[in-house]
Amino acid sequence: MDTREKLIETARNLFLQNGYGNTGVAQILKTADVGSGSLYHFFPTKEDLLLAVLHKYKELLHPMVIQPVFDRVTDPIERIFGVLDGYRQMLVMMQFSMGCPIGNLALELSNSHPAARQLLAENFTGWRLAIEKCLNDAADRLPENVSAEGLAQFVLTTMEGAVMLARTYRNLEPYNNAVSQLRDYFDRLLKDGTEWSEARPAPT
Amino acid sequence: MDTREKLIETARNLFLQNGYGNTGVAQILKTADVGSGSLYHFFPTKEDLLLAVLHKYKELLHPMVIQPVFDRVTDPIERIFGVLDGYRQMLVMMQFSMGCPIGNLALELSNSHPAARQLLAENFTGWRLAIEKCLNDAADRLPENVSAEGLAQFVLTTMEGAVMLARTYRNLEPYNNAVSQLRDYFDRLLKDGTEWSEARPAPT
Repeated sequence: MDTREKLIETARNLFLQNGYGNTGVAQILKTADVGSGSLYHFFPTKEDLLLAVLHKYKELLHPMVIQPVFDRVTDPIERIFGVLDGYRQMLVMMQFSMGCPIGNLALELSNSHPAARQLLAENFTGWRLAIEKCLNDAADRLPENVSAEGLAQFVLTTMEGAVMLARTYRNLEPYNNAVSQLRDYFDRLLKDGTEWSEARPAPT
Repeated sequence: MDTREKLIETARNLFLQNGYGNTGVAQILKTADVGSGSLYHFFPTKEDLLLAVLHKYKELLHPMVIQPVFDRVTDPIERIFGVLDGYRQMLVMMQFSMGCPIGNLALELSNSHPAARQLLAENFTGWRLAIEKCLNDAADRLPENVSAEGLAQFVLTTMEGAVMLARTYRNLEPYNNAVSQLRDYFDRLLKDGTEWSEARPAPT
């Protein structure tokens, strides 16, 4: 790995563990085992490094979050719940110490760092588009008036809120609950989308 | 307002605007116009002040967030959406610079401050219980197998995720979308809860 990549990976991990504000330059240099000259050469400011980290997250979305699920699962609706399963595993593996990296940085930096905010929004949009694709692939099973974009964004909303609650309560229950409520909502949509309600005789 | 209260109110506002880590002691003293002797008398550490702020949020939940809506709206389901409207107004009034104070602090402090984490969880639980009460009041209109606790927590999940996305995108669309998807889910639950599906003749 070259020095620039090493700095980005180190910063990505430290920001995830400690947040952006709590990560010091000295800590980045020490963890990456890189001299300050190299750091300032590649990233004149700490914010430049942050923006590189957020670009990296955009690059990693498909190979790290989406594709492993899509390779394993073919049903488009189950792909959505497969992606959500990934976050459950992450919460458990990290013992609730890490949430969604984008969500964390979004709440920390949305006010103070407009350029980062823009890239955070692009990360959210990329995630939403991957879910939206699944919903479009399952469009013939959903009611006609469902907006794939709106429903995909609702899945993202649910994931982010559920990760936040699970981290705060330090247990999976809020995450599992949110996913099972979302599943119930999907079941109702799918039922409505595949029933020929017009063909049913009117109640007497 | 006495000095202790003044310090709590000042810290509450500064933590909301800038986060906990980014709020300095000097800034608290200056904004509250209080001497450092008084601060250390009431709050030996910054974390003591944080815990007092989180206790204050628990106290304020009903008079500030819940009761104004319950006074205006009587239908229990509409009370839930009335509470959600309050967060939409807050986002607009503050031009997306502030989100849910508890959600912000939850992501900032869940790892590093176990005592605060506990109080953050208690704040979430208080909010959930207020929504759960509405759902229990509307139990006869919902399907029998709906868990009021689980659905109330899903409402909280939705609110927190939606506030996060609205702040990141700096517009209301993600918030409005989440509320309208949640409304669609409620409509489906209410429809299912009030239909006598067993009494309907089987399709021929």
